[in-house]
Amino acid sequence: MTVVTANNRAYRVPAHAVVVITVDGGDPSYFYDGLERGIMPRLQRMLDEGGVFSVGASEVPSLTNPNNISIVTGVPPAIHGIPGNYCRTPEDGLVLLNDAKYLRAPSIHARFEEAGVPTLMVTTKDKLRQLLGNGGVPSVSVERAAGAGIPEYGIESVEELVGEPAPGVYDPLASHYAMRIGLSALRAAPQIRLLYVSLTDRVQHAHAPGEDVSDLFFTEFDALLGEYLDAGCTMAVTADHGMNAKHDENGEPRVHYLKDVLEAAGIPVEGVVLPITDPYVKHHGALGSFAWLHLSAEHREPARRVLSALPGVEEIWDREQAATVYELPRDRIGDLAVTASADTALGSAAADHDLTQLHGPLRSHGGRHEQPVPLILSGSVDGPLADPFEAGILRSRDIHDLVLNHVGA
Amino acid sequence: MTVVTANNRAYRVPAHAVVVITVDGGDPSYFYDGLERGIMPRLQRMLDEGGVFSVGASEVPSLTNPNNISIVTGVPPAIHGIPGNYCRTPEDGLVLLNDAKYLRAPSIHARFEEAGVPTLMVTTKDKLRQLLGNGGVPSVSVERAAGAGIPEYGIESVEELVGEPAPGVYDPLASHYAMRIGLSALRAAPQIRLLYVSLTDRVQHAHAPGEDVSDLFFTEFDALLGEYLDAGCTMAVTADHGMNAKHDENGEPRVHYLKDVLEAAGIPVEGVVLPITDPYVKHHGALGSFAWLHLSAEHREPARRVLSALPGVEEIWDREQAATVYELPRDRIGDLAVTASADTALGSAAADHDLTQLHGPLRSHGGRHEQPVPLILSGSVDGPLADPFEAGILRSRDIHDLVLNHVGA
Repeated sequence: MTVVTANNRAYRVPAHAVVVITVDGGDPSYFYDGLERGIMPRLQRMLDEGGVFSVGASEVPSLTNPNNISIVTGVPPAIHGIPGNYCRTPEDGLVLLNDAKYLRAPSIHARFEEAGVPTLMVTTKDKLRQLLGNGGVPSVSVERAAGAGIPEYGIESVEELVGEPAPGVYDPLASHYAMRIGLSALRAAPQIRLLYVSLTDRVQHAHAPGEDVSDLFFTEFDALLGEYLDAGCTMAVTADHGMNAKHDENGEPRVHYLKDVLEAAGIPVEGVVLPITDPYVKHHGALGSFAWLHLSAEHREPARRVLSALPGVEEIWDREQAATVYELPRDRIGDLAVTASADTALGSAAADHDLTQLHGPLRSHGGRHEQPVPLILSGSVDGPLADPFEAGILRSRDIHDLVLNHVGA
Repeated sequence: MTVVTANNRAYRVPAHAVVVITVDGGDPSYFYDGLERGIMPRLQRMLDEGGVFSVGASEVPSLTNPNNISIVTGVPPAIHGIPGNYCRTPEDGLVLLNDAKYLRAPSIHARFEEAGVPTLMVTTKDKLRQLLGNGGVPSVSVERAAGAGIPEYGIESVEELVGEPAPGVYDPLASHYAMRIGLSALRAAPQIRLLYVSLTDRVQHAHAPGEDVSDLFFTEFDALLGEYLDAGCTMAVTADHGMNAKHDENGEPRVHYLKDVLEAAGIPVEGVVLPITDPYVKHHGALGSFAWLHLSAEHREPARRVLSALPGVEEIWDREQAATVYELPRDRIGDLAVTASADTALGSAAADHDLTQLHGPLRSHGGRHEQPVPLILSGSVDGPLADPFEAGILRSRDIHDLVLNHVGA
């Protein structure tokens, strides 16, 4: 049996296609709800026939980039280097963490490719493609599918491969197009052994479990999951983070604007860094439940006192402690890290956030309360990971270890 | 090289004595302070001569029993079964978790003993001895040293071995007597390969870094650490949890009595379980920064709303989520888990807590803010754990893996 090592974890090379799907914003509540109401019959059948459903924890901040990278590297942000979608780096100042140059660890897929094992990364948002494609991994995104091919597998046109034009990245079915690309690619290139498909949370940001658009999303998801299963793939499904409503009964966002609050208290702020920040402002207006503050040393304790008195502000940690408890790289986080409750978001200055573009009342993530995520497998877990899987204490970054090394027949 | 496996982790059997010391309540701040003021010359010399100092995270709740068991088993409470000093179990109701029958995982030391490798557990508090001695591991406590021997090593009298009578468990130097027992036992039984010494936090509960009694504690600790080093032992030092002041400027405890608060809001409470509860009430009056609530289903969301409005209350999780984010056994925790800030403690009903017995203004632990702990080794870390050690993201439960498998010369 061939084994490939990535970041000090060993992974078996499978004899057939293994597929990991990350449902962006795929809070466990969507799956509980969908299963209970019977709108996910293929997932239900998979579970009835030996598949398993548990929960685990994502990285904090509970955001897309850190978690997708944790999932494909098997290690936390302290090791892979991506603690947010956005952060302040010592070398380049404030940057979107979309550039592969910020990666400090290779993906499992890159190590498979080095070992001659064919892999593919399919993303919905193009922001992830560069990171996930690092190390010579074939990659394609829905957002840039028009005109793109997958030359490594002789595919000249992704849209021709799928048989329809790619939707826009804000289309509720954009994620499903990513799943279709993966399916079509597996048919065209059956040598692929490890496929990663990363969806987008456009629907989850706007719609709670049980809403029509959510049902459309998960019904379609379920049908495509069924197609993967019918194709004989071993399947794993997780999420990069959960999702919670962060608005009041009137639909108004429940937000603390930390720069405004601190300046009103006479505390000068070097910077409020909102690591949820990304190019997809219609999703969240850069408002999530996690913030880093850059402050000169004498202002940190006063800032902590002011912020801890705000309702909905939960944990406040200094840089060293935040690195330890959240497993983050010390050089890419703030002097203070602030988290908010499930129903509260954190902003910088009110004037900097344009909420007129939101698709609906604010639903978002980034904090501790969006850390629980589903861990779903098409077969039972055996060996040393069986007990922690059952106990719900594994991490989403364990999903490749689970599906490649521990899933029984 | 002989390797022994415990709970799916493999440990090398050392050719000479390896010693792990858990400083109860040994917050990193005591070590930072002691090193800065030069009162720990042997630790300083150890670090100058190749030893390493980093931080890591303890289990939450950050308490003695869960963490000592995590340290000696290498797995979290979800696996070893001890989520507090005290909890409600389905089988026995409210119990002090001092009885080995509640253990769900063997210790590394029990597996070493099974493999014929001599080990020894020395505790200060007797409450830990039964748990740590489980599986046929020779064990002795300072609290019950009078009249006790260590028959496995032909030691008839512990007090004769040490050469002086054991102090009381509330004596500031009780911990050092535990270290002396370990040293004397190693001299009398040089076949011992793995020694665990667990101290008590009587001093840390009453004295901040830099106070005279703290300085006495760490000066004596340092001298004894030096004796272990002079005896050729490979050393590891960690803590079961940190420690923070939980009182206001006037020395009054800053406490929310959760039962009182909820009942005043008209919410009936089945039980408030304070997992810090143990026989050593002079330390903390059962007041720490973590509580479990047992509530009927319809009262959980109202309780969450009431409690989350209290200043200093941080995270509130339901049972399933608490099990995931804190890695706890679902059947031994409450319907809600509540954590408090560094400066705030949680009680049940005010009338149930006798604070007149405290040694001084309340200093305590149990919450997230007492999670950071020191990880100190007498040699550098090599191999796969080097990067996470340096990043400060390992757990105290990794200390045996570190010291047995990854410490260089």
